[in-house]
Amino acid sequence: MNIPGSQLPNWLQRSAENTPQKIAVSTPEIEWSFAELNQQAIQLARQLAALGVRQNSRVALLASNGLPFVVCVHALMRLGAILVPLNVRLTLEEQVWLLRDVDALALVSDQQYHTRASELKQAFPALLEARLLLDLADRQVTLQNIAPDLHTPLLDEIDLEAIQAIMYTSGTTGTPKGVLITYKMQWWNALGSSLNLGHHPESDCWLLCMPLFHIGGLSILLKNVIYGIRIIVYEKFDARSINQAIQAQGVSIISVVAVMLQRMLADLDDRQQHYPTTLRCVLLGGGPAPRPLLEECARRHVPVVQTYGLTESCSQAVTLAPGDALRKLGSAGRPLLPVQLHIMDEEKVAQPHQPGIICLKGPSITTGYDHRPEATAATITDGWLATGDIGYVDEEGYLYVLDRRNDLIISGGENVYPAEIEAILLAHPEVEEAGVCGQADPQWGQVPIAFVHLKAGSSLSSDMLLAYATPKLARYKLPRAIHIVDQLPRNSAGKLLRRELPNYLIAKMPKKH
Amino acid sequence: MNIPGSQLPNWLQRSAENTPQKIAVSTPEIEWSFAELNQQAIQLARQLAALGVRQNSRVALLASNGLPFVVCVHALMRLGAILVPLNVRLTLEEQVWLLRDVDALALVSDQQYHTRASELKQAFPALLEARLLLDLADRQVTLQNIAPDLHTPLLDEIDLEAIQAIMYTSGTTGTPKGVLITYKMQWWNALGSSLNLGHHPESDCWLLCMPLFHIGGLSILLKNVIYGIRIIVYEKFDARSINQAIQAQGVSIISVVAVMLQRMLADLDDRQQHYPTTLRCVLLGGGPAPRPLLEECARRHVPVVQTYGLTESCSQAVTLAPGDALRKLGSAGRPLLPVQLHIMDEEKVAQPHQPGIICLKGPSITTGYDHRPEATAATITDGWLATGDIGYVDEEGYLYVLDRRNDLIISGGENVYPAEIEAILLAHPEVEEAGVCGQADPQWGQVPIAFVHLKAGSSLSSDMLLAYATPKLARYKLPRAIHIVDQLPRNSAGKLLRRELPNYLIAKMPKKH
Repeated sequence: MNIPGSQLPNWLQRSAENTPQKIAVSTPEIEWSFAELNQQAIQLARQLAALGVRQNSRVALLASNGLPFVVCVHALMRLGAILVPLNVRLTLEEQVWLLRDVDALALVSDQQYHTRASELKQAFPALLEARLLLDLADRQVTLQNIAPDLHTPLLDEIDLEAIQAIMYTSGTTGTPKGVLITYKMQWWNALGSSLNLGHHPESDCWLLCMPLFHIGGLSILLKNVIYGIRIIVYEKFDARSINQAIQAQGVSIISVVAVMLQRMLADLDDRQQHYPTTLRCVLLGGGPAPRPLLEECARRHVPVVQTYGLTESCSQAVTLAPGDALRKLGSAGRPLLPVQLHIMDEEKVAQPHQPGIICLKGPSITTGYDHRPEATAATITDGWLATGDIGYVDEEGYLYVLDRRNDLIISGGENVYPAEIEAILLAHPEVEEAGVCGQADPQWGQVPIAFVHLKAGSSLSSDMLLAYATPKLARYKLPRAIHIVDQLPRNSAGKLLRRELPNYLIAKMPKKH
Repeated sequence: MNIPGSQLPNWLQRSAENTPQKIAVSTPEIEWSFAELNQQAIQLARQLAALGVRQNSRVALLASNGLPFVVCVHALMRLGAILVPLNVRLTLEEQVWLLRDVDALALVSDQQYHTRASELKQAFPALLEARLLLDLADRQVTLQNIAPDLHTPLLDEIDLEAIQAIMYTSGTTGTPKGVLITYKMQWWNALGSSLNLGHHPESDCWLLCMPLFHIGGLSILLKNVIYGIRIIVYEKFDARSINQAIQAQGVSIISVVAVMLQRMLADLDDRQQHYPTTLRCVLLGGGPAPRPLLEECARRHVPVVQTYGLTESCSQAVTLAPGDALRKLGSAGRPLLPVQLHIMDEEKVAQPHQPGIICLKGPSITTGYDHRPEATAATITDGWLATGDIGYVDEEGYLYVLDRRNDLIISGGENVYPAEIEAILLAHPEVEEAGVCGQADPQWGQVPIAFVHLKAGSSLSSDMLLAYATPKLARYKLPRAIHIVDQLPRNSAGKLLRRELPNYLIAKMPKKH
């Protein structure tokens, strides 16, 4: 589609023109101005063009949080190529499946993942493969051994209707699906967020310690250049260094999940410190937050802003305004301006306080899944996305999330889909039935556990089954325990009742007295 | 067009849900919360429906700055009707022409303009006419003697592609043209402005003393509900009361033209005061600002932000960021994020420092003029709007406006088009030639003056001609002086050389020694 007025100037280019000398990205090793970041993106785009990347090419990126990732995202935008960020925690088998599903033309990796990239290349000999090198001395990120193509024209404009990224998420079926993320979604998400949280172009600085291969991290790279504000990128979450950055570097916004925030507060306690007033927003997403944590933050005046979103909504969709944090403790807030929210109960809009499926509509919501028209049609009706999550709104329209997508387990901010783990277990020839649910965990919020009913005559042990699943499932998806049981709880129609699995476990445990 | 994702929730409705008790609009007489404003808009929409207003009806509004105007704007949005704000300074003849040109279905006026509205109704017996009453005791704005229609459904959504308003502007031809203003333009203008100026939802307050029938005023009514911030609306500019509001009411942003700012500074001097730090932005538009004024503001730390825009760009298109105010004194700044800027010199993009026509592109720029495809085609090419204004950009892309649209005269912030005045003068049977140009004026910046060559044998005097023009031209367009001359300066092709008119005047004046 070429809709009049849907072209914008390239956001990074514009920020580089507006404020060339301003710091765009800081990492512990190096920091770059907007002019440097823009120049590096152009240079890398020319190398990607030489590799064979063109408009609409699908380019998988396997990299840790850092400048190579950041530059690659912007370089692909200059070519109109589509970013497919790979979750680095996935196993080789999972990544192979994903590259095949998305029909990737090329794979780009950073130094940390060169070995894995080689393994993936072996599985797909036709895949174009290139490696990102960060040269600290020359202050540049390049593709190893590739001369730039100076002839391929780069895009100066962004077409809002074009696809910026395809991001995989599983959902209830257990099969990962590629969510189409357009530039329009990123733009509206950024603007909706700024209308709610405010925008202080002179002083804002956003600290990013969430994985860039998830929408919550990636969307901040876009906010970086749309807002023209500095971001600080950490490879990994480390409470101590993040607290130090907040104290010393003028961080004004930070995105975290509950487990991170708990560790940050514990570290603050250890050092008997508190946060400076420059920290104006702690954006807390990735699943329901424990109420004691919210109360603790309120007591300590930590400016927590709860938020609810998913890949399909390009991160934040519903956010609690800072002014409401105390009055509406436990709520995810109200929809951002571009977003409309309905709670649907059996095809009717539910009344306040009546639970139902959380449905979202608006220009920051995806139009569908890559090459899966049935999944798209099953999820989106007349522009309304049925998230599958359960919640209600109060009489003032504030959302309370009761349950994430059916039986979704959220472990340290990562989504874990029971159906996906069950499918792996069921693929074992000696497994008859499998059921997975979440178990509370003090460190990760939840961890998955599995219940398996073996075929008659099988002598498979839990450990053998775990060894079987290990190469097939990312570590955070691997069941913490596999219980061999005689049967699984099912309703009269034979549907597995995952919610009953925990009770079922208690029933199976030896009585304590 | 029904583009997916182009529907947004009604902005006022959303602000009323987000912050029902927050003050939305203050006037010297009364102030309303967002909930009250929303409820009043719904009530007035039902009365307008009873009057016969429907989706896409064109409704002329003749009202001074105040709550009736504000409510009417939002009521029309709930019906999907098109607002046609009438410049209250126009003469009866000019307003009659405009109502005919826009093919208005209805005319709505406030108490101050009831008499004029009756005169207009006489000229158009088929026109639906209704009168707005502000009832301070009951805190409401109603249509006189009209019972609400409770059956017509109101719109909960805004279609960004729909037309919100048609605003008349003259341009070089002298014939006013209706600029199509879509919701999309208003949205992108608001967002582009907030990305540049910042957005402080908890504390921002925008003071509005510009006429609401111009885009610079009207666009603030949209920002009011998109940002969810308070606005203070003054009927007229009065330096003393505006300075008092800035001191006492936490005004953070104010939109002014140069002549207003000069008077505000003079009043400050009289009272030996200075502005509080809560005033973070004095948005200075409506024509080039005198350099001494800018230097004076810099000396006094008045946070002036220069801006360039026009009706066709939905107000602000190019703005000097606060941080650049001193370094780039005299520049109008850089384009807002949604806007692209080119300087065109004979169909080529000009080099830095090379003057040419200022051209703009982006989603906040109009797609054209109402029922004037030729004028649209002559002005817009491939999405690029040729403003007709002359300027250049420096090597950093900062715009310097040299001359407003060809021979545009800007008098106290109002655009005065020489061709429009010349057309009136030429319509007199005894006038052979007419030329109009601006003359510097200490109070208004510029005022129009006219040069007229009479037909052979005519004994028309300047005063007689002025009396003839008075009912046909708004006061600010009426020539301050009409000079009867023997000939007008023309080039070899016979084209009037308006720029030479002032020199021509000097030549005609008696020598001083």
